Formats: sequence, structure tokens, C-alpha cells
Amino acid sequence: MKSSMEKLTALRALMKEKGIDAYLVHNGDAHASEYMAPYWKSRAWLSGFTGSSGLVVVTQVEAGLWTDGRYFIQAENQLEGTGIDLFKMEMPGVPTYIEFLTDKLCKGGKLGFDGRVVDVREYEKISATLKDKAVTFAYAEDLIGAIWPDRPGLPVAPAFEHEARFAGASAGDKLAAVREKMAKHDVSAYLITALDSVAWLMNIRGRDVSFTPVAYAYVLVTTDAAHVFIDHDKIASFAPNLEAQGFTIHGYDQLLGFLGQLKTSCDKKSQTDLNVNCDNLCCKLLYDPAKTSVAIAEAVPEGVQVVKDLEVDIVVMLKAVKSQIELENSRNAYLKEGVALVRLLKWLEEHTDIPSLTEGDVARKITSLREEQADFLEDGFSTIVAVGGNAAQAHYSPGPVGANLVKEGFLLIDSGAQYLDGTTDTTRTIPMGAITDEMKRDYTLVLKGHIALSRVVFPAGTTGVQLDALARLALWEYGLDFRHGTGHGIGYCLAVHEGPQGVSKRSQVALEPGMMLSNEPAFYVDGQYGVRTENILAVEKRCETEYGVFLGFETLTYCPIDTTAIDVFLLTPGEVEYLNAYHRKTYELLAPRLGEGERAWLSKATQPIG
Amino acid sequence: MKSSMEKLTALRALMKEKGIDAYLVHNGDAHASEYMAPYWKSRAWLSGFTGSSGLVVVTQVEAGLWTDGRYFIQAENQLEGTGIDLFKMEMPGVPTYIEFLTDKLCKGGKLGFDGRVVDVREYEKISATLKDKAVTFAYAEDLIGAIWPDRPGLPVAPAFEHEARFAGASAGDKLAAVREKMAKHDVSAYLITALDSVAWLMNIRGRDVSFTPVAYAYVLVTTDAAHVFIDHDKIASFAPNLEAQGFTIHGYDQLLGFLGQLKTSCDKKSQTDLNVNCDNLCCKLLYDPAKTSVAIAEAVPEGVQVVKDLEVDIVVMLKAVKSQIELENSRNAYLKEGVALVRLLKWLEEHTDIPSLTEGDVARKITSLREEQADFLEDGFSTIVAVGGNAAQAHYSPGPVGANLVKEGFLLIDSGAQYLDGTTDTTRTIPMGAITDEMKRDYTLVLKGHIALSRVVFPAGTTGVQLDALARLALWEYGLDFRHGTGHGIGYCLAVHEGPQGVSKRSQVALEPGMMLSNEPAFYVDGQYGVRTENILAVEKRCETEYGVFLGFETLTYCPIDTTAIDVFLLTPGEVEYLNAYHRKTYELLAPRLGEGERAWLSKATQPIG
Repeated sequence: MKSSMEKLTALRALMKEKGIDAYLVHNGDAHASEYMAPYWKSRAWLSGFTGSSGLVVVTQVEAGLWTDGRYFIQAENQLEGTGIDLFKMEMPGVPTYIEFLTDKLCKGGKLGFDGRVVDVREYEKISATLKDKAVTFAYAEDLIGAIWPDRPGLPVAPAFEHEARFAGASAGDKLAAVREKMAKHDVSAYLITALDSVAWLMNIRGRDVSFTPVAYAYVLVTTDAAHVFIDHDKIASFAPNLEAQGFTIHGYDQLLGFLGQLKTSCDKKSQTDLNVNCDNLCCKLLYDPAKTSVAIAEAVPEGVQVVKDLEVDIVVMLKAVKSQIELENSRNAYLKEGVALVRLLKWLEEHTDIPSLTEGDVARKITSLREEQADFLEDGFSTIVAVGGNAAQAHYSPGPVGANLVKEGFLLIDSGAQYLDGTTDTTRTIPMGAITDEMKRDYTLVLKGHIALSRVVFPAGTTGVQLDALARLALWEYGLDFRHGTGHGIGYCLAVHEGPQGVSKRSQVALEPGMMLSNEPAFYVDGQYGVRTENILAVEKRCETEYGVFLGFETLTYCPIDTTAIDVFLLTPGEVEYLNAYHRKTYELLAPRLGEGERAWLSKATQPIG
Repeated sequence: MKSSMEKLTALRALMKEKGIDAYLVHNGDAHASEYMAPYWKSRAWLSGFTGSSGLVVVTQVEAGLWTDGRYFIQAENQLEGTGIDLFKMEMPGVPTYIEFLTDKLCKGGKLGFDGRVVDVREYEKISATLKDKAVTFAYAEDLIGAIWPDRPGLPVAPAFEHEARFAGASAGDKLAAVREKMAKHDVSAYLITALDSVAWLMNIRGRDVSFTPVAYAYVLVTTDAAHVFIDHDKIASFAPNLEAQGFTIHGYDQLLGFLGQLKTSCDKKSQTDLNVNCDNLCCKLLYDPAKTSVAIAEAVPEGVQVVKDLEVDIVVMLKAVKSQIELENSRNAYLKEGVALVRLLKWLEEHTDIPSLTEGDVARKITSLREEQADFLEDGFSTIVAVGGNAAQAHYSPGPVGANLVKEGFLLIDSGAQYLDGTTDTTRTIPMGAITDEMKRDYTLVLKGHIALSRVVFPAGTTGVQLDALARLALWEYGLDFRHGTGHGIGYCLAVHEGPQGVSKRSQVALEPGMMLSNEPAFYVDGQYGVRTENILAVEKRCETEYGVFLGFETLTYCPIDTTAIDVFLLTPGEVEYLNAYHRKTYELLAPRLGEGERAWLSKATQPIG
């Protein structure tokens, strides 16, 4: 393979040929996915930097990579000798990539990029900032594709139906619910680009990317049709079922052409009023500008009215509120996960040669224990097993090997699974031997935050930003904090990170019964240790009074929380009671699924404290 | 005086004459003040409705008043027989007044209003909604003025200087700070319309309205001048001092004409680049669209670039962060207020004929006790003394008489004062005899919320919306809540409600050291009782760690919180400790300022509990 230097040279030659002054290499697929197929990893191929967030800008004289604080160290290492400079995002004095472009591009300059992987929101930001420079945009330029000889192909894995017993509602029922919302927002067509949204709506799952069981596809829902754009091979075995549910199937690469017809069709019906239903084709088109590419936006004829200011996308909202069947299945999936994790914790505790184990060994062990459980698909994300200071990087991943375990300090394990009946995400911090008083204190403060959020009762209409502080109060009192949100939404046999709900400074969406969220306060000491305790919660209705409907959280995750690392003196009686009740229930729910020795281990691990 | 019916007839005749199809009668002065001079009370004059929030829309066939939930009962009573219908804001099925206008106005219709009292933000909302109707706006039509023969004049009370020992910074220094921010926002002129902002900047106070010591005036700050628009009589005695600080004085009614010159002046310098400093006159003008009237906006020549998208107005932000001198003076003012309130509580407790007292008597008693204190100006708002169910109306005011006191249940007192050295606002709930277990529980839950907010430590950057839940958690657990914010900012010898900070669902401004806020969780049972406990807090820096700068609250208000109404079993040891420490300090700080008998009373009232 060529070096990054050689690739840059080839790219610059091509830029010159095409009169492109600056070229953007984004990290992303055509669906704004968190995890994507290798075909799309242009930025990693060009720069060698493999982090999940980052963008490269190339001019004839400079090349820079912009990434965030999670990846500064990794990027510094991976960029060495590439000819690409690191720009540390949000550090004082460091320009944003748009500021960099504003500075470097001359009036009338030309900015190129692959419009398939730049979303409309981002494009609007770029073009607004560069307006005064009269920059032209070459948005259909996949220059990396042109210089990448051994580029992997788009994935071709067959998709499969998510059976009714798992999916609950039929695709037809979901389509009806979507159309009801479309009518409310007065749109006649609605383009769904996010892969998990497509999978949810169609009741299909796929194998096109790692960690999220989705297939590359789009759906365009109109008032009386639902056009699916997907490689036919992927759904050949059950295409008639999809058609029976109301879907019309097109090739994956036919979307842009199809969108291009929209205006003609509207014109036929009416020249002036675009807000009518025209032969299943779009007249007033809704899409999510943060998930829809420039290539798509540019394929839509000018006469079509586009709605892109919905606060929350229709399917994103419908999908976030889990049905009774999805919740019931998730409860089962979480017990299966609990069994796998109890077996892991027992295995770890009883392992006679801890220093011989690597972080990667532990990660593989978790996966193998999950494989014993029914309806397991794959891990939900790259398992974090982090020894000591490694855990201070919130998004550490050990890779296949990683560090060796040690018989002291904390081991942090953050892992999740995709089962056909649910997606899990659990973090536990395990003392592997001696820990300091400070580590005990920090572990306990994080636990206090975790318990505070788990126990809160709140009125309907409350948003995550109003609850986020609860998980931090105990840390704040000691002048401590953690620099990420407390909780994210989670999918149902879909993405482990799912919107719109969350618990963080930025979570402005009201929590509704049926929404599922993580509860993962944490604390990190650079280079020394990390503490994080994470369960998944489901919002549930608690009571209704003249002061409103009140909600609370049902805990879905059952897995022992280490009690030996707790400084009991820092807990209130109510917190002790909560933890003991949690452990009582953990034993009750998991014991029937365990062997005798495992039950004995669990019984010990869930003994009451205080 | 004519009846509302007759006034409506006169108004409609005038509307017909002028071809106005619908006319708006707003409640407000030309400065968007909370309290205003009688001259501006057009809506109350027309409708008879005296609530602080409400707007009348009149057409030839209909007339409606829009007001919020606080005033539904009052408005129903006061509107009886007026020919004006009540529209209950935010109730299901009730249109907003803009929806009402959209429904009633025909295409090309004409909407009239007094543009002096409609702010730019509101006007933009109206005109955006009515755009499709091609409605024209007659914004210079004070039709109420034309039919109001005995309309009071604009106030003429002399203003006075806020002495250096109270004001701290000089007006000249404040001007310099303002100009620094203007430069940051790249504006060459800045119009200040809010009366408290004008008073803060000029270091003057006035007597033009009740409760807030301000004078009617505007200031236009440019890069090298500061034009004050005020009736010269009001400042005649100290005009030279103002001029020495850099102010140029114009008549109050000269503002619009002055603004009208801005374009000419800019044109002289440059036809194309408006962003330059032109002879002290505006080229790039900043104002707060929520505080600036349509009349002003329309007086600005078209060529002038207007900036109205600042998140927080410059002076509002500067004024919110109190200086060391302002904080030190406030501490003193709060102790004076504490003395007055202790005397009131003792007087009440020892009064031998409680049922002979009215709510109004108690309110007057508070004012008279304040008059014994140095540098007292006036009450800071209409004192709330509320017996039993009256307290369930959060904004109840007894008027001069009100209900008679009773020797049972709660008496709620919410009152505040304007001292030259600070503005106070305190609420206490006092058991006047037997109270039920439920009242005790609710009183204690409110107290728990009050303590939780008082004690919190939080990182710099935290906003009120992140802390609001702390004051509600205890109530939420019982399915209870209160329907107003937990805290508002407060002025310094200025408005009792002052932005931008607050503690509520809507408080998105980061709390900064020096900001002052109320802490007033509450609970109301309709028709039965109300509980509210309010102290004023100042944000202070607590510590700095590698995880950030951490802030907390200093309590400024010292006045005993009744302990006999507490259900001690609901308090945690930490809460008991907090309350006892608060009472210990209350005694320490107030005792030296009290007589012997008062000290004895205070000593009893501040005995530790638990």
C-alpha cells in the first residue's frame, strides 16, 4: 500500500487537474452512520488515522486533520510522518476547519468533496461561512475513490426479517404511524436515510456494518407508497413479504434518479400548488438535514418544497419510544446479558493467572459467553476492557491484544451486545486487588450519582438536561466531574447510541414512557484510573396527580455492582437500601438461569452491605 | 368615567374612521417595564382588568382579552359586562391572539396599535404570521390616547444620583466597560431602553414608577459619546455631573428624531461601508428587540445596519454580575431587612388579637418596620400577605385590606424592599395555629428543595435549567410540583426581577460569580394553602481543580425559617445540620442590631432542631 505522503501527492495532482483548491475528506458513509462499511473509510485510508471522529482538509501546500479531545494522542501517533498536521478541536487558538478554509481559500476558489458523505446541515454551515469568498463547490468529486486502487466494495451481506415475535408491530402498522405524523407535519413525502430508521420501519436487520445490525438502504415514504432503495440480492429471499407490507423495491443506486423525477410529476398535477399528493411522488419533501447528504439534496429538483426543520425526525421519535413487546423482549435480552456478565466476572475472579490475560482476552471471553445465549447476533460496539490508566480514556479500545491485566487497581469493562430481542450496554468497574482510599471515594461518588439518577421521580415534560446534575452532585461537592454526558438513548436490536433522548447538558427532548437510556456517570484520573458504572433504564409512568403525570426509571440491566470498592460511610441509608434491593433483585432474576456454582458466586457478589 | 362598553364604542368609531379593522391594546410602557407609570395603563383603562399580564384585541364585532392562568379568575370578574371576552392563554382549544387575528382579518386588512408599546420581537411574530394575509400595519395609532380624556400625564418626579459609596463603579467606568463589549460585538452604537439598565449605567435612581427606583429615559452609547434622552427637569440638579461622566443630555421626546438622523450622517462618511464610526452617530446599531419598541425600530433609517441577535444584552449582563461593593452593600441591606422581618414575626407572634388584623395591616406593618432602617426607599413590589387559600395564588396581592388573619393554618408573606444599598425579596410561611400532617409534610418537602439548591456545588458553565430539579426532587417523589420557576435574578437597588440568570426550565444562562438569585421552591393546594420559602443567594467561587472552577451559593437573606412546621423525620442529618447552621448564623448576624426582647425572641426562633 502507498504511504500517506504518496496518496497526498496523487490527490493533489488530481485536485490540480480539476481546478480544486481545497479538498475535504470526511469520515462517514452516505447515511451518517456511527459504524460504517470499509468502503467508506476514505479518511482513514488517506491519513492512517483510525479514530471515529475526524476530517482531513488538503490544499496544494497544507494538509490537516481535525479531531476532538478523545483522539489527540492517538492522532498524534498515527499522523507521524504523513505530512498531515493535527488540529486539536476546541483548543484555544486552534481554528475550526471552516475557519481554516476561510483563511486559505482565495476569492472565487473551488472547494471539492464527496457530496455523498457530507450532510446538508454541514454543507449549509460551510457555504454560509464561505459566502463572502464566492467559493464554488464541487460536491460530486470522490477524488479518494479515484486514487484508491484496492478500495473495498460496498457490502453485499444478505439482510433478514426481524420476526414478528421480536419486532412487535408490523412494517405496515409502522408505515401507517409514519403517515399519520407526515399528515400532521403536512408533508407528502418523507425520505429516511438513517440505516437504523430504515431497519426499524421495514422490520429487517442486516450485516452490512459491524456492531449495528443494519443493511444499506433508503426509504421514501409517500402518502400511498413506500419506495425502498436497496440491493435486491440482500432482500431477495423475503421481497414478497416486503411488497405485501406496502413497499416498492428499487435498486440502492436508483435513489438519486428517482428523486430527480419529483418535480416533473408535481408539475403535471399543478404548477402552483406544490402541497398536493402527486402519483406517489414527492411534492413537499421532508428529510433530516443532519442525516441527508448534499448529493441527495442536490438531486431533488428545485421546484420541490423541502421541509428540514423538524425538531426530531419522525421515525427517530417513533423508534425511541419502545413498544410493550420491545420492552418485554429487552428485559429478557438483559437477563441473558446478565448471565453472560456474571459468568465473566466469576471467571475473572477465579482466574489463577491474571497477569497472563490481556485486555483483548477478556473482550473475547465476553463475546464467547454471549454466544451461549439465545438469539445473539454480535457485540454492540468494540468492547472496552481497560486496565488502570487506560480506563481514563473514556473511549479506549484495547484492539485484539491490549495491555496485560494486573492484580491491583481497577479494571473497567464497558461492553454491549446485539440480540434479536434487544441491545445491551453495561459498564462495571472491578477492583483487581489493592485500591487506594481515593479510588474508593471516587468509586463511591460515581455510584451515588448512578443511584440518584436511577431513583428520581419526575413530571412528564422533564428533559435530560434537567436531570443530568443528579448524577454529578456527589462528584461536584468534591470539585470533581466527568466530561461526557450521563446517558444516551439505546436501540432495540439496533444502534447502541440512539436519539433523540439523553441525559446531558444538551438533552432538550422530553423523556417519555418507553424511552430507554443509559445511566453512566464516571470519573477519570489521567494516566491512573477510570471509574464508570452503567445500567440501562427505561422510562415508565409512576403516578398521576393533579400536579401532573409523574415518571420514573425501570432498571433493565441486572449484573452485580462491586461492593468491596465502596466507602459505605459516604452512602446515605437510602442509597444503601437501593443497592441492596438492586442486588436482591439481581440474584432473584439471574439465579434461575445459572448453574449451581454460578449461583453461589452470585449470592456472594450480591450480599447486602451497610 | 365612562364604562368599558362606551369606551369600546368610541374606539370602534375611531377605528372605522381610520380604516383600522383590528386594534391591539397592549399592557406596557415604552421601555418594556414590569412596573409602569399610570399614563401607560391603556389596557386597564379600556377593559377594567388590572392584572400585570394581558392584551386586548378589538374588532368591529368582537373584543377579547388574552391573559395567563394566574389571572383567569380575576379577569372573569373584572370583565363582566364589559363586552370583552376572556381568552384563557394556553388552555386547549383557545386560539392565541395572533391566531385570532389570522382568523378574523380579511386579506389586505389593517391592524392598528400604539407602536410605542409593542416590542420588535412581538411585531416580527405578528407580521410573520399575518404575511400571507397581506395585512398592513398602522403602528403609530394611539387610539386609546385619543379617547381617554383624563389620561394621567407622564411622571415628572426628580431623579437623584446613586452615590459612589452605593454605586461602586463610576458611570464613566461603566461606559468604558460597555464600549469594550460594543467593540467585541463590532457595533458602533447601542441603544439602551430598559429603565433599570439606564439607571445602572448612569448611576441614577428615580421615582417615576412604583417599586423600581428608575426614571423614564433612554441612552444611546456610541464609540465616543453617550446620548441621554430624559426630561431635563428630572436631572437638572446634577446635570453637570452627568456631563462630566461623558453624557450628552437630550429631551426624552427627542430620541426618535435623533435616531432619524443616523443615516444621513453615515452617508456622509461612506455610501457603501456602514460599519464605521460616523461622528458619534450610529452606523451599526445594537438594541434588544424584546425591549425596543416598533416606534423606535421604525425611526431608524433603512440604511443603518441593526444588530438584534445578541443572546444577552450588554448592560443586562454587566449589571447581573454584582461588583464586590454591590455585594458588600447588599449583605448590609439584607441584615437591615432581616431586622425588619424579625420585628414583624415577633409582632405577629405576640399579637393578642390576630383575627382583627387584615392582610393589608400586616403589609403596612412591614413597610413601617422598614422605614426604621437606614437608606430605605420603598417596597420592592406589592407585598404578598396571604391567609390560607389566598396563598395558593402564587401572585396574590391583598390590596389595602384583604382577608382577616386566622389562628390556624399557614400565613404566607412574600415581600421585598428597595434600599439604596440593595434590593431584597424574602418569603416565609408561618403556621398561625394548628396545621395538618399534610401541611407539615408539604412545608418540609419545600424546605428540602430550598436546602438542596442552597447547598449545591457546581462547575462554572452550569445553567439554571441544570439546577432547577434540585429544588423539586423532594416534591416530585410524592407526585407534587409547583408551576413556576425556582429562582429569578434580582437587582441592586433596582428591579426585583432582573435577568438574564434564573433557576427554571428556561434558564439557559451560565451562572457566574456575583450573580444574585432567589431560591423559592413552593407548593400550592388550590383554595387551601400555599407554602413558599425564599432566600436570596449570590453565586460565589468555591474552588478550582483540574476538573474545573467550582461555584456555590452564598446566602444573603437571614431571617428565621419556622421550625415548628417541620416534620423532622423527613429531613436527612445533613439537612438538619444545614438548617441549624443557618439559624446559628441568623442569630449571630442579627442579634447585635436588635433590642433585648427582640434578641430573646430571635434566640428562641433559631433554636436548633433534630
